[in-house]
Amino acid sequence: MQTMDKETLTGRYAEVRNVTMKLIEPLEKEDFIIQSDADVSPPKWHIAHTTWFFERMILKEFKSGYEEFNARFDFLFNSYYNSIGPYQPRHERGVLSRPTVEEIIAYRQYVDSQMKDLLAETHTPEQAHQLGKLVEMGLQHEQQHQELILMDVKYNFFVNPLFPAYKETQAQQAIEPKEAAFVEFAGGLVEIGHQGEGFAFDNESPRHKVWLEPFQLASEPVTNGEFLEFIEAGGYEQPEHWLSDGWGVVKKNNWKAPLYWLKNEQQQWEIFTLGGVKNLDLAEPVSHVSFYEADAFSRWKGKRLPTEAEWEHAAQNLPIQGNMMEQEAYHPSTAQNESTAPLSKMFGDVWEWTSSAYSSYPGSKPLEGALGEYNAKFMSNQMILRGGSCATPASHIRETYRNFFPPDKRWQFGGFRLADDQA
Amino acid sequence: MQTMDKETLTGRYAEVRNVTMKLIEPLEKEDFIIQSDADVSPPKWHIAHTTWFFERMILKEFKSGYEEFNARFDFLFNSYYNSIGPYQPRHERGVLSRPTVEEIIAYRQYVDSQMKDLLAETHTPEQAHQLGKLVEMGLQHEQQHQELILMDVKYNFFVNPLFPAYKETQAQQAIEPKEAAFVEFAGGLVEIGHQGEGFAFDNESPRHKVWLEPFQLASEPVTNGEFLEFIEAGGYEQPEHWLSDGWGVVKKNNWKAPLYWLKNEQQQWEIFTLGGVKNLDLAEPVSHVSFYEADAFSRWKGKRLPTEAEWEHAAQNLPIQGNMMEQEAYHPSTAQNESTAPLSKMFGDVWEWTSSAYSSYPGSKPLEGALGEYNAKFMSNQMILRGGSCATPASHIRETYRNFFPPDKRWQFGGFRLADDQA
Amino acid sequence: MQTMDKETLTGRYAEVRNVTMKLIEPLEKEDFIIQSDADVSPPKWHIAHTTWFFERMILKEFKSGYEEFNARFDFLFNSYYNSIGPYQPRHERGVLSRPTVEEIIAYRQYVDSQMKDLLAETHTPEQAHQLGKLVEMGLQHEQQHQELILMDVKYNFFVNPLFPAYKETQAQQAIEPKEAAFVEFAGGLVEIGHQGEGFAFDNESPRHKVWLEPFQLASEPVTNGEFLEFIEAGGYEQPEHWLSDGWGVVKKNNWKAPLYWLKNEQQQWEIFTLGGVKNLDLAEPVSHVSFYEADAFSRWKGKRLPTEAEWEHAAQNLPIQGNMMEQEAYHPSTAQNESTAPLSKMFGDVWEWTSSAYSSYPGSKPLEGALGEYNAKFMSNQMILRGGSCATPASHIRETYRNFFPPDKRWQFGGFRLADDQA
Amino acid sequence: MQTMDKETLTGRYAEVRNVTMKLIEPLEKEDFIIQSDADVSPPKWHIAHTTWFFERMILKEFKSGYEEFNARFDFLFNSYYNSIGPYQPRHERGVLSRPTVEEIIAYRQYVDSQMKDLLAETHTPEQAHQLGKLVEMGLQHEQQHQELILMDVKYNFFVNPLFPAYKETQAQQAIEPKEAAFVEFAGGLVEIGHQGEGFAFDNESPRHKVWLEPFQLASEPVTNGEFLEFIEAGGYEQPEHWLSDGWGVVKKNNWKAPLYWLKNEQQQWEIFTLGGVKNLDLAEPVSHVSFYEADAFSRWKGKRLPTEAEWEHAAQNLPIQGNMMEQEAYHPSTAQNESTAPLSKMFGDVWEWTSSAYSSYPGSKPLEGALGEYNAKFMSNQMILRGGSCATPASHIRETYRNFFPPDKRWQFGGFRLADDQA
Repeated sequence: MQTMDKETLTGRYAEVRNVTMKLIEPLEKEDFIIQSDADVSPPKWHIAHTTWFFERMILKEFKSGYEEFNARFDFLFNSYYNSIGPYQPRHERGVLSRPTVEEIIAYRQYVDSQMKDLLAETHTPEQAHQLGKLVEMGLQHEQQHQELILMDVKYNFFVNPLFPAYKETQAQQAIEPKEAAFVEFAGGLVEIGHQGEGFAFDNESPRHKVWLEPFQLASEPVTNGEFLEFIEAGGYEQPEHWLSDGWGVVKKNNWKAPLYWLKNEQQQWEIFTLGGVKNLDLAEPVSHVSFYEADAFSRWKGKRLPTEAEWEHAAQNLPIQGNMMEQEAYHPSTAQNESTAPLSKMFGDVWEWTSSAYSSYPGSKPLEGALGEYNAKFMSNQMILRGGSCATPASHIRETYRNFFPPDKRWQFGGFRLADDQA
Repeated sequence: MQTMDKETLTGRYAEVRNVTMKLIEPLEKEDFIIQSDADVSPPKWHIAHTTWFFERMILKEFKSGYEEFNARFDFLFNSYYNSIGPYQPRHERGVLSRPTVEEIIAYRQYVDSQMKDLLAETHTPEQAHQLGKLVEMGLQHEQQHQELILMDVKYNFFVNPLFPAYKETQAQQAIEPKEAAFVEFAGGLVEIGHQGEGFAFDNESPRHKVWLEPFQLASEPVTNGEFLEFIEAGGYEQPEHWLSDGWGVVKKNNWKAPLYWLKNEQQQWEIFTLGGVKNLDLAEPVSHVSFYEADAFSRWKGKRLPTEAEWEHAAQNLPIQGNMMEQEAYHPSTAQNESTAPLSKMFGDVWEWTSSAYSSYPGSKPLEGALGEYNAKFMSNQMILRGGSCATPASHIRETYRNFFPPDKRWQFGGFRLADDQA
Repeated sequence: MQTMDKETLTGRYAEVRNVTMKLIEPLEKEDFIIQSDADVSPPKWHIAHTTWFFERMILKEFKSGYEEFNARFDFLFNSYYNSIGPYQPRHERGVLSRPTVEEIIAYRQYVDSQMKDLLAETHTPEQAHQLGKLVEMGLQHEQQHQELILMDVKYNFFVNPLFPAYKETQAQQAIEPKEAAFVEFAGGLVEIGHQGEGFAFDNESPRHKVWLEPFQLASEPVTNGEFLEFIEAGGYEQPEHWLSDGWGVVKKNNWKAPLYWLKNEQQQWEIFTLGGVKNLDLAEPVSHVSFYEADAFSRWKGKRLPTEAEWEHAAQNLPIQGNMMEQEAYHPSTAQNESTAPLSKMFGDVWEWTSSAYSSYPGSKPLEGALGEYNAKFMSNQMILRGGSCATPASHIRETYRNFFPPDKRWQFGGFRLADDQA
Repeated sequence: MQTMDKETLTGRYAEVRNVTMKLIEPLEKEDFIIQSDADVSPPKWHIAHTTWFFERMILKEFKSGYEEFNARFDFLFNSYYNSIGPYQPRHERGVLSRPTVEEIIAYRQYVDSQMKDLLAETHTPEQAHQLGKLVEMGLQHEQQHQELILMDVKYNFFVNPLFPAYKETQAQQAIEPKEAAFVEFAGGLVEIGHQGEGFAFDNESPRHKVWLEPFQLASEPVTNGEFLEFIEAGGYEQPEHWLSDGWGVVKKNNWKAPLYWLKNEQQQWEIFTLGGVKNLDLAEPVSHVSFYEADAFSRWKGKRLPTEAEWEHAAQNLPIQGNMMEQEAYHPSTAQNESTAPLSKMFGDVWEWTSSAYSSYPGSKPLEGALGEYNAKFMSNQMILRGGSCATPASHIRETYRNFFPPDKRWQFGGFRLADDQA
């Protein structure tokens, strides 16, 4: 990775950190505290934890004489780094009213000020390079938590019978749903994975060869309208479409539709969004489905999900454009990306489930030290999603980016696109 | 029950409701939201639910043209009245950030203003009597929640590794622990239960005859010092003292001491209080023990717990004095009640576990309608406690008052006093 | 307790032990092994445990030079005596295929032979008295397990989709259901509890005074027909009749009827019995209901359950007659006990739930040593049942006998009889 | 697949079915009934289910006028085929004492006799081909259950404090443990997967290209001795070696060593085997470790597990020889396979965990109808193991064979072999 100059780095630091502050503006103090599910974290925790990341991984290592803000924060705001020490259990993040939101904001300001000082200091080129890499890591980490804040607030508001809205959002223009076409790819011995100067996580490397059989990929993600056909055809009642574990999850949780779909008293489908409850728009990409639902739909349709290698191969050379966090829609859009034809919406809108289990690339080397725990230790029981969503910052996403979730999780903005073998 | 005149009733309404507002003054907004255990409710919920009680049980019934503040509050703030309708599950009270604390305060003010109007209206004597009874019921209910607020805040703060204090409290004067004496009672055919003009819950009636064998009752509740002897003698490791269910609870939860006892790094016992962490005072009544612990200690000591009839018989004619909520100590005291000699501390300090399971008195009649669910439906798997605690409002306690908790619960201020058969 | 002479004692030992062997005759080897629920024990375990009781409590204490059959059996067949040592967890009794049934029968024969020798030896009067008491205790214990074998086999067979029958049983004569009358009792200061020469468990003593208000008791237990009315009136869907804990149990387990009631494809009620599946006989006492169901029915009917003191007072001086284990019906009968009019079926048919929680009598003293764990440690969260059932040996039941089960248990033959205050 | 002639097929049918009967000879009737864990099935269920497979998949489809043995067996002995209908829940297979073992043996004999008749009938070549394929499928299925019988009996006997032995087994000759060498493979574009005439499951096809980077594979599986070093170095206490989910499992279950390792009173390691408890032999391949333990050990050692493609590529052209079920050792051996040098023990001894999640091969087509549920629906949250074990029938294993288990399972004979990238 290239070394960024001081000003650029300082500027990018301020910019990314400010985005977080802007994201929490619509929240009441009360909203910062709750954790409505073990998977979800209180917004207060996110803004503290991202701050702690800079304090613990950078200030304590690089800034001479640095005094930590509060010695107990190592326990309270460490997420899962066992090599750093014990931490508040994840599912108990929501039982802590103190420190207050105000104290956490003060913590952010303290760390930001210290970081500003550190970045202004004179460093050897090697130090500057190392520091630049860690700062970028911290900012990429912060961007992941920006998306998590949106995901978690959405879930927290959904379990509230009052269905509060996070923020007024624009109504979309109604369009006529159209069927996705299938685009053909010849496959062969291709390369995937990250290489080069820009930032990427350790799990995206090294770039390596993969053999692909010829395949087809849908031009669009599956829409609410198509998914509704599956529901109405009895898809959630027919075990033959489902993986065995998936069927178990459907029965246990009594799933009948994607997360956030609601049937109103007139038996019409509505959908809960960060802008409140809306009518279900059939032309939008379906979102908040689990891997199991994506897989079952595909099987029902006589198709399959793409592998992550197929997805990445198809995405190579496409511009990174689409409906992302900066659009502030926080919801999948009906509009198409003309610029990336014949494949639309590869980036933004919804993360796309692939059929690939999360595992390490051949020859990969995890980071050393605590940061080695960032990605590699999650490589079991998780499936890869690609392409970013309407809640992902645009500067955070890449064609090689590997997101991952357990196959039963639905609170991320997760949709999918069909693939098939060539006839 | 005698009918109170308008002014007195209006005054008492304002007074009790104000106490609640005073109790929440030390809280930050964040503290209002959390529910750190299924048994515990967020303070916000308490202040909303007590308000809802007046709205639902009185304003909707008695005030013509009353417009409810928010139609969804019936769902959100109904505690357990099935005859009124469905409600937010108890263990999910802590996932609701909205309505905000400010909105709930506005709700209180709206209801208080409507109540003031209602009480100022002209009523027939029968209406006035019925209204007076319901208002008193609502206020007694509010007082129960005042104690619950203190109990719940204490628990919420205890699970926080920062151990925040609710309020600075005075240090107690150190005294020399002294052994309790045993006071003899002849027993025979006695009467217990409520009768007469003052307020009492339906579960305290009717007054009825009970045959008591001669018995002895300790002059004081068991102290921390005495309980520490039990711990140090291995009481928590010896199944022979314990009820079978109690031993199961001890093993499952790995209990080694009462709730809120902490061993510091120097292996000295400390105790968490609403005033923060303090040194353990051996002369204080032991508190926050379960029925199982009280029962095991008694057996180890060769004694037993009193029945509720024995306790009430012994308490008859004692003045209702002691260390209660109004003292603002919020913690059991070392000081003795000289005025009630030879029995000290029968009222206040700690609720005293009895050996009596909670059941209805002979010939009892539960209230009609929704209020019939107030007490009677909890008559299984609960044990009776008597006498009020340092967190109980003084005007709320009576010699006939029957508090009840499941035998494994410890977050209430629960202690005990030994009894014995006569030699 | 009077000392029995050698021959009588030896004879009674052989007789009771033989009943157990006769009870297991209809079982296949496979039936001895299974444990279909944590509350249920495999028949093999019962025949080993009752044998172990004699070995551990008598032979090891009294027989000089006694050699135990297998040193591991102390671990395998101790039920819950913590003072004796660790034991196989109750819910894991069904994972042990070895020792085989044949080995356990050999164990019984070994212990029986040793017991015969011991009883034939010459003892001092004091020894003889002590031995006689312990042997009777062991036999009473064995009789409890005889009933448990029938209860447990019934449950084990019920969870099997083949619904095997334990033994062909006679069809009952159909009779016209008739309404129970209410018999009046004046109450006052009465006495209950055991006194005198015959055997009784420690929890039945001492005889003591109790004050009873005037009350009424139904002449018959509630029948299937009456209970069906409750079901058809929506009793299982209406929370207002239920204790709060009971309603939780109903919802959690989706109860719609007593245990063992089955609706066939023609929507007719059938009932599973030890003789297989039969049509539901409306005139039979309802059985296999929990305390919660008995209590809810009573409330729905505007009545209540009797206290155990009321029940015992009413049963005093009635002959101990009825439909018990020796009849080999193993099912409640429609026939009335003319001999005990106006109260029918007080003994046998079904254990009758009372409204009394299980607790110790005033002045009671549990047995010393391991046998002190026999009864007293279960005195929490259990309700008293009285009178014995169609699966209780006739020589095992007494008017003072206190059976107890948690309020949600249904696999015992538990029914109930209504009571009321006097008008 | 080639069509087998009648005599060969009839002979193979009899042979495989007889092996099952021989495997159960050492069992007592009681041993057939128990299910000591949800993953384990009672031996009775295995012998019934394998029989049901022939009845349901072949006799009901192919034999005109076939009368089923018992109509309820479709419910009782269907394992998981939702397309066939509802079935006894897996974790409740151990609560069924009936049908008895004798009845199940009669069922086997009935089905065997009917199968013999069916195979003797005249079929068209197409029918004969189809029948041959299904019979072979049924026999391969039976062989899987032969291994399961050994696995399940082992687990059932292990939870019994008496530690019964299934069968006397020979002591192994003690040998000096020696370190594994690493064998180099050039990788490149290789082919894996099944092709050709012999039987293979649907999940092994089609044969397809895979790109492999150069890699190394250990000449031997990891031994008990090597694994003991990991234990003694604190491997089970150090989260840094473990996948996050794996570490959770270690903590939850308090794992300290592989399943079946026991520390005796002298603090020496012993191991439970189907021949009873033995001293731990350090030269044996380690067995009964989970994927998590295999992965953690590899990481601790600075190595990794092979992918399934690497494993299969390395195994191509090796003879299928080794310590398998027919040797009747039922335990990993210390002896080396000279014939397969430089790679020893690729087949037999222990199934070898790979780093590959179980997923479908490119272009794969699951079987149609109920048999489509045989393999494909399990393709989530499972990891691939290769090479067969000491409990696998020799005619059942192939280089392309894909076994799979969730990463936390240990009751299969699962070990592993290290791999590495090339330097």
